[in-house]
Amino acid sequence: MSTPSTQTDIRAIDVIRKKRDGVELSRAEIEALISGYTRGDIPDYQVSAWLMAVLWKGMTRGETASLTDAMLRSGEVLDFSDLPAPKIDKHSTGGVGDKTSLVLAPVAAAGGLLVPMISGRGLGHTGGTLDKLESIPGFNVNLSVSDFRRILQTCGCAMIGQTAEIAPADRKIYALRDVTSTVESPFLICASIMSKKLAEGIDGLVLDVKTGSGAFMKKEEDAAYLAELMVETGERMGKKMAALLTDMDQPLGYYAGNSLEVVEVLEVLHGKGPKDLVDLCHELAAWMFFLGDRVKTVTEGRQLSRQLIASGKALDKFREMVALQGGDPRSIDDPGRLPRAQHTLVVASPKAGFVTAIQCEQTGIACVILGGGRERKEDSVDPSVGLVFHKKVGDEVDAGEPLCTIHYNSESRAARAKALLQASFEISAAPPAQVRPLIHRVISKFGEKD
Amino acid sequence: MSTPSTQTDIRAIDVIRKKRDGVELSRAEIEALISGYTRGDIPDYQVSAWLMAVLWKGMTRGETASLTDAMLRSGEVLDFSDLPAPKIDKHSTGGVGDKTSLVLAPVAAAGGLLVPMISGRGLGHTGGTLDKLESIPGFNVNLSVSDFRRILQTCGCAMIGQTAEIAPADRKIYALRDVTSTVESPFLICASIMSKKLAEGIDGLVLDVKTGSGAFMKKEEDAAYLAELMVETGERMGKKMAALLTDMDQPLGYYAGNSLEVVEVLEVLHGKGPKDLVDLCHELAAWMFFLGDRVKTVTEGRQLSRQLIASGKALDKFREMVALQGGDPRSIDDPGRLPRAQHTLVVASPKAGFVTAIQCEQTGIACVILGGGRERKEDSVDPSVGLVFHKKVGDEVDAGEPLCTIHYNSESRAARAKALLQASFEISAAPPAQVRPLIHRVISKFGEKD
Repeated sequence: MSTPSTQTDIRAIDVIRKKRDGVELSRAEIEALISGYTRGDIPDYQVSAWLMAVLWKGMTRGETASLTDAMLRSGEVLDFSDLPAPKIDKHSTGGVGDKTSLVLAPVAAAGGLLVPMISGRGLGHTGGTLDKLESIPGFNVNLSVSDFRRILQTCGCAMIGQTAEIAPADRKIYALRDVTSTVESPFLICASIMSKKLAEGIDGLVLDVKTGSGAFMKKEEDAAYLAELMVETGERMGKKMAALLTDMDQPLGYYAGNSLEVVEVLEVLHGKGPKDLVDLCHELAAWMFFLGDRVKTVTEGRQLSRQLIASGKALDKFREMVALQGGDPRSIDDPGRLPRAQHTLVVASPKAGFVTAIQCEQTGIACVILGGGRERKEDSVDPSVGLVFHKKVGDEVDAGEPLCTIHYNSESRAARAKALLQASFEISAAPPAQVRPLIHRVISKFGEKD
Repeated sequence: MSTPSTQTDIRAIDVIRKKRDGVELSRAEIEALISGYTRGDIPDYQVSAWLMAVLWKGMTRGETASLTDAMLRSGEVLDFSDLPAPKIDKHSTGGVGDKTSLVLAPVAAAGGLLVPMISGRGLGHTGGTLDKLESIPGFNVNLSVSDFRRILQTCGCAMIGQTAEIAPADRKIYALRDVTSTVESPFLICASIMSKKLAEGIDGLVLDVKTGSGAFMKKEEDAAYLAELMVETGERMGKKMAALLTDMDQPLGYYAGNSLEVVEVLEVLHGKGPKDLVDLCHELAAWMFFLGDRVKTVTEGRQLSRQLIASGKALDKFREMVALQGGDPRSIDDPGRLPRAQHTLVVASPKAGFVTAIQCEQTGIACVILGGGRERKEDSVDPSVGLVFHKKVGDEVDAGEPLCTIHYNSESRAARAKALLQASFEISAAPPAQVRPLIHRVISKFGEKD
């Protein structure tokens, strides 16, 4: 085995050794490693050793920004600078029932922002925006860059999947991390998220970093660390940044599963919908408007968001985007046209009392078992299956009262999901001492801006 | 990229994760990783991430023994149990001028032990036993296992290189460590050395672990740690073990370079030779005899070693082995038949005083520059070039008096080596406060046995 090297004088083996020994890497060293790997000049086995050394020794803020930049520049960076309106996006680290992107893109666009949103698919226990959108008959998430631009220019928002041209280094590194137990590094997570988001050619980004039993970062301090890292990395790259640390200790809203979540999105856009989901959408939209200079305070941003929903402008924008992306706009006005599972099954409470906890990750796994999510990247999803929750943490419940309804197409899968869900609700005689807040913390150099 | 797995239920990704998280691996997990890698079912990129995690988290004694055992059993394990005499070998971690193997194999065989020695080639600044042997015209180190056995049975010692059948996992892992900056782990070094040595089918092993400026382990505590690890690993695998921590802060003996070292070996076998080399040979031979139950104490072992050299029996044994392995036995009695460089050049002392230090690794690099060693595995060596030292640490020297003679075939290489050597000798007005002892420490459950 010879020592592969990059086209520069920088050798991968030395970059690995430096990181292993805790020496800070230069921008040129990180750039040489990432570009060499993307070109195929540096083999997987050197990068995987380096990734493990990063888990071991961590990265400085400068290294993290260099890595993000190198991954960003490994592919195409979209440029919408000719479009005058501020380009602002939102990214969530993912959870169960988190459908805010489908509300926020039309709300923000209706409020005068441009939202060039590149999203992902569900993986593990979490859902994915692309899978939810594809439950709308005809909706096409695989647009060319020119179609993406045209729709963005026409309606103010467009939502697509990652193209082969965007951050190819991230795709290669992510696949390698996945099989070498090197996923859980905040520095690598930050670079992966930020390189893809900054390739969208945006001016600002609102991060929704989830924490709790249904989040990837279960501990609040881990979520806060990642949030601060992403905010600082974005700022170092000249972007306006804010991160909201939000609760994912129970599902967001009442619906989980692809077409079911679109139904709940439509409720929100109709001015209805559950309080937690509605509040979070307004909060995130408010920050998008604030970063995009559409309002002077976040409070004003909340008001604007509420107005855009109350006036029906956000719903109109959503219908317009769906139509432009090939989706059937009739399904927006008649959710009965969305895919629907053949059967339903109720999970009832075994006793009277209060819901004191919901094992949120387990409910996401129940969705995956039903076929609504992916265990492997190559799995396909069933858009119609999912869960409708009837009780959330703090709610009182009678013995035999429904906790949740399972929407399913396979009896055996439903039975497995039911067993998991029965074990996921914690029912106690007394109500919980306290219910976790929806917004745990805001991380932004602009403060809370109320 | 899918997750490759072994034929067992044990997945490489989980073995990596456990090690990364500091969880002790079971024998079955280590075995699955090593056998899967040897078969090609587990890819390089998973093993390199695991190797970096081993550098990070270390290994327990149990894991180290499991790794050694798995690497040993990845290939052929020689079996000489039908030969009644004790099979005892010696292994050195390498240095400059370390030619003791060529003395010890015939001394031990003359004393009734069997020495089935599988050796390596020089790499980096250190010389290798195989290269030294091959400077004897005709000497063949590439014997089949059946020829190796026949010669061992006939003369009591045989010296060959690693075959493709011996510990293939080690060859693969070593090549991977070499390009992923994962060489410097005592656990991986231990498993690499011990898996190859225990594949020889030996009953006991004497380790010569070098420490000082010319050793791989420059710090005494690192050398001691590795020595203890190897002794314990060997003992766990049922072998009689002893390790001597010996000095490599200056070259061993006066000659460095392949055929030059054979000349010095012949001097020792003739009852002459420099005190440090002679003493170390007797010390190591004594422990070999002791572990092989040929003597009751190490002191008796030293006496036996001296007798076997004084009587000429060891020299006869060496001549016999050389002839059996295809070498020209006339070169043993007439060292003038060994390859000889065309030119010599003296490195003189710039001033009068005392030699207070010799940068030992630099002298080894000077040898490599002359062509006597390898910078890369695939390089060939010039058997005739090398260095003859005239002064060692503690010696008094006049201004202009020779410190060292360079034997060379290329003027430009000689000039580079000369500059390096001039910088390697430290000459001071006062003698050194103390000269480091030859034997720093003995590590064995048998104690010093004097």
